[in-house]
Order: sequence, then C-alpha cells, then structure tokens
Amino acid sequence: MSRSSFDGSFFQLAPAHLRYGQAVSVTNSASSHRNRALSIRSGNKSGKSGSGSQLPSFSFNSLRGQSQPELSRKLFKLIKSENNLINAHEAAGRERINIATQLSEWGEQTSDEAISDISDKVGVILSEIGEQEDTYAHSLDDSRARLKSIRNTEKSVQPSRDGKAKIADDIAKLKMKEPESARLVVLEQELVRAEAENLVAEAQLTNVTRQKLKEAYHSEFLATIERAEKQIILAKHGRRLLSLLDDTPIVPGDTRPNYTEGSQARQILNDCEDDLRDWRPESEEYETPVEEAASAGVKEKQPALDVESSIHTKTPETATTVAA
Amino acid sequence: MSRSSFDGSFFQLAPAHLRYGQAVSVTNSASSHRNRALSIRSGNKSGKSGSGSQLPSFSFNSLRGQSQPELSRKLFKLIKSENNLINAHEAAGRERINIATQLSEWGEQTSDEAISDISDKVGVILSEIGEQEDTYAHSLDDSRARLKSIRNTEKSVQPSRDGKAKIADDIAKLKMKEPESARLVVLEQELVRAEAENLVAEAQLTNVTRQKLKEAYHSEFLATIERAEKQIILAKHGRRLLSLLDDTPIVPGDTRPNYTEGSQARQILNDCEDDLRDWRPESEEYETPVEEAASAGVKEKQPALDVESSIHTKTPETATTVAA
Repeated sequence: MSRSSFDGSFFQLAPAHLRYGQAVSVTNSASSHRNRALSIRSGNKSGKSGSGSQLPSFSFNSLRGQSQPELSRKLFKLIKSENNLINAHEAAGRERINIATQLSEWGEQTSDEAISDISDKVGVILSEIGEQEDTYAHSLDDSRARLKSIRNTEKSVQPSRDGKAKIADDIAKLKMKEPESARLVVLEQELVRAEAENLVAEAQLTNVTRQKLKEAYHSEFLATIERAEKQIILAKHGRRLLSLLDDTPIVPGDTRPNYTEGSQARQILNDCEDDLRDWRPESEEYETPVEEAASAGVKEKQPALDVESSIHTKTPETATTVAA
Repeated sequence: MSRSSFDGSFFQLAPAHLRYGQAVSVTNSASSHRNRALSIRSGNKSGKSGSGSQLPSFSFNSLRGQSQPELSRKLFKLIKSENNLINAHEAAGRERINIATQLSEWGEQTSDEAISDISDKVGVILSEIGEQEDTYAHSLDDSRARLKSIRNTEKSVQPSRDGKAKIADDIAKLKMKEPESARLVVLEQELVRAEAENLVAEAQLTNVTRQKLKEAYHSEFLATIERAEKQIILAKHGRRLLSLLDDTPIVPGDTRPNYTEGSQARQILNDCEDDLRDWRPESEEYETPVEEAASAGVKEKQPALDVESSIHTKTPETATTVAA
C-alpha cells in the first residue's frame, strides 16, 4: 500500500523517471519482441534453470536472501551463485591435480618405461591445467568483490528511497485530514531535503552500478581468456607428448623396441614452460580505466564517497550523507 | 589436533614449504624451476593433493577399490577421480547458466535501459560459456570410457599372471618333496600352456594400454582446446558488449543520455553466433587413428579380441582364450 503511494508521488515529483513498475513492464515487452536467442529472459520463464527461482525454498540461504532489502536481493543471490561457481572451478582444479598424480603413479606401476615416462609427463601437463583452473577460480573471486560493491550501494540507497516516500505519504495524508496544518510546511521542507539526498543516492547508485558491472565482467572475461589461452598451450604440448608413445600393436612374445624418446619428452615440457612464461594478455583494445582500479586493489572501498564529494557543493541542502 | 601435528611434522621435514598458503606459492614458483616441473612423482610425496591417498579411508568407494585386483586398482581410482572432475565441470556449467539468468533479471529490475539490455546480452554470453563447460564435461566422459577399457584388460590379465605363477610354484614345491613324481610332467605341460596364454594376455595388455591411453588423453586435450577456443570467442564478444555501457559518472539531478546502442549490442551477439558456427577444430597435425575409433563409437568393445585373432596362428598351443 505504501509502495503504491510511493510510486505515485515519485511519478509526480520526477515525471522524467517514469514509475518503477511501468519501467519494468516496458522492458519486459521489449524483450519479448527480440529474437529469442538474443535475450536470456524470455527463454527463462519456461526454462529449467530458473524454474525454481520464484518458489520460496526453506534453506538458510534463501531465508537470508529474504532479509535483504528488496533492491539488493537479486544481486545478493547472484553473488551467492558466483560463490558456487568458484567452488566448482576450485573442485575441478583439485580433481585435475589428483588425476595427474594418479596417472603418473599408475604409469610407474606398469613397469613399461615408455608408459611410465609419458604418463608422468602428461601428468605434469594435467597438473598445470589444474593449477590454471584454480587460478581462474580465484580471479572469479575478484569479480565477485566488485558485484558486492554494487550490492552494498543498492542496500544503502533503499533507506533513502523509503525515507522520501514516507514523507510524501505523510504529507498526502495530512493534506486530506488537516489541509491547514502548520506541520505541512515543516514536512514539505523535509521532503525537499529528502529529495536532495535521494538525488545524490540515485546518482551514486547509477555510477557505482555501471562502473562495477563493467569491471566485474571485464575481469571475468579476461580471466576466461587467460585460462583458455594457457590451457591451449598445455593441451597442445600434451598432444605432442602422446605422439611419442608408440602404439603399434605387437604380437605375443615380441618385445617393444627400447624407449628412446625420453629426451624429446623432456624437451616438450621445456617448450611448454617457455610458452607459458612468454604468454602475455592481448593488447587492450578495449578502453577502460578498470586496470588502475584493479591494480590499486581497491575492492571494497566506499564508492559512494567519490561521487558525493564531487557534487557536494551543487546540493548544499544535503546535510546528511547517504552512507548509512 | 591431528591436523596441527601433521602441519608440525610437515614443517620440520620440509621447512621451505611452510604453511599451506605458502606451499601453494611454492608450487606456483616451482614451475619456474625446470627440473622440479619435469616429473610429478617426486613432487607428489609432500604435495597437498596426494596427502590423503596413502591413508585408508572407510567409504564404500575406497572399499570397492580394495576389492579390485592389484593390477587394476590404481586405474580404478583414477577413473573415479575422473568422475569427480566431470561432476565439477558440470556443476560449473550449471552455476554459470544460473548466474547468466540472475544477471539478466537483476538488470531488468534496475529500470536502467542500458544496464537492462547489456546485462541481458552479457547473460546470453555467460550462458553459452556455461553450455561449453557442460559440453566439456561430457567429452571427459568419453575419455573416461577409454580408460575403462584399459582397466578391464588389466583386470582380465591378473588371473593369467596368477595362474602361471601358481603352476610354477606347485612345480617348485613338488620338486622339493617328490622329485620323481609323475605329476611333474603334467604340471610342466600345464605351465607351457599357461605361459603361452599369458604371453597373449601381456601382448593384449600392452597393446590396449598404449592405444587407449593415447586415445583417452588425446580426446581430453582436444576437448580442452575446443572449450578454450570457443570460450575465447565468447569472452571477446562479451568485452565488446561491456564497452557499449557508458560508465561516465553523472552528477545528482542529471539524467543519462538515452541508450542508443541496442542495435549494436544485437549485432555483437550475431557476430558471436557466426564466429561460434564457423569454429573448426584445427587441422590434425598429430597423426593418429583415434578419430576413426572415436567416430565409430566403439567405446567399450573387447579390445583383446583384435589382438587375439591376429596372433592365433602363431601360438597354437593357446587352447583357451584370455577373456574370462
């Protein structure tokens, strides 16, 4: 109920901003006209992956999600899913390294010199593939931290929206009941202040959201490319190693020729190591200030403050800061 | 408590490895020391990944492992680890697709047209990255099936080795007790037969092992390259999408310019789709008959039979076939 009155007053005061509900439905219908492959939303309604997301489930996780302010709830859940993703990639890296060791030890047990050497060296390659998987998982963690910045800002903007709506609501009620009340003047002054504060909050929200969203997925895509390029190097040298293993069938009683490819196999690992060391990220054709922010290690700083200080003089009536 | 005593002894034995966190960095830097990276066996003894493999654990799985013949026990465990690896990559794919949907829905809720469109389309990219992860998991399953062929052959060769050893043992005992026994002649005939049978079995084992080992990891490396190359295509177009999102900070009260990049964003997804469709595996510079075997879909055929038929005439005394 208070929600609908909030929407009404917001619409009156800032007609350019449309209403919350309307904006959403406009977006919805727009996406349904798009090519289906071009949007993930329309497909999701009947899709298997998202089918359970509307239903309440009674785990601790989803209860915690419910206690988040409306504004940050979706991102809260997304950040939890990123955590699951990170765990899955970590597990993959761990298992890959296990397999590498097991393969090497199995090869040793065959007492076949060629299999022993090749399986050991393929194990080295697999183990490094596993390390790359683990590095990838950690990069995803960086990007997760950036999404948290957005979520924290969303969380802090909610009270500002609520506060403004409440005052507008009070004014509307009082005008109905006591149109001549002296409190109306005070309330209207309060509303002006709340509106100013909310203007700042909304500017902070859009600035932080756009910047951190770009940074988060920029860094995920870069990490995806790095893992991919390094694993391609490893896999290609792995295939060279396998080609050293003679698999011509022998007949019973024959013995295999002696294994003489040991030094070649060693050279392949050296080549692989050189290639990995020489790997560089591709030149940044994508213009962005992300790198600076990332290298400064400023992951969880209060992004709201920058915007605030830069615009403080323009809205002197904003007495209180937004950051709750 | 057992954990800390482990850490303590570990510290004493290998002071350079220090704590877990540092051990990780040591592993990382180890790849820059060539000799160390050339074998995975020596590194494994003190490594974290293999630390639990020596200890008996009392799960059903490891008990089942114990009931395997000695010869196939290591590979039995490796195949189980491959299963864990497959599950981890499947989970990663699933979570990635979840995140894609959540990101798109979050973007819709922001009522910011630019964020809504870009997040939806980045979601499409992420979802396809997840699909590639899932495809990769399934390719690993193919390679796992090939390792099973080796394991099955190992399993069937064990009785042949045991049988031969038992007869030789019986002969030795009988020679000690009753050197003139008439049974010695019979036993020695049996031994000749058992040796012939074992010659076939061992030839089958080396042939199957080398062929299937090459095939298994050849196919894993090819799958690794395919996933990597396709995810690079996706990540690069994902970065192009992000570059369409204007993250110039605005001051409170200002509104963002209208979002006009919708058609460009749609074009990027089209480009991406084209690139994925045009993707081809690189030309096979690695000579191998793997492709035929793979395309014929003969995953679990009895590999022993081929070898057997081709050598049957050379060992006519082999009355029984090895396949138990």
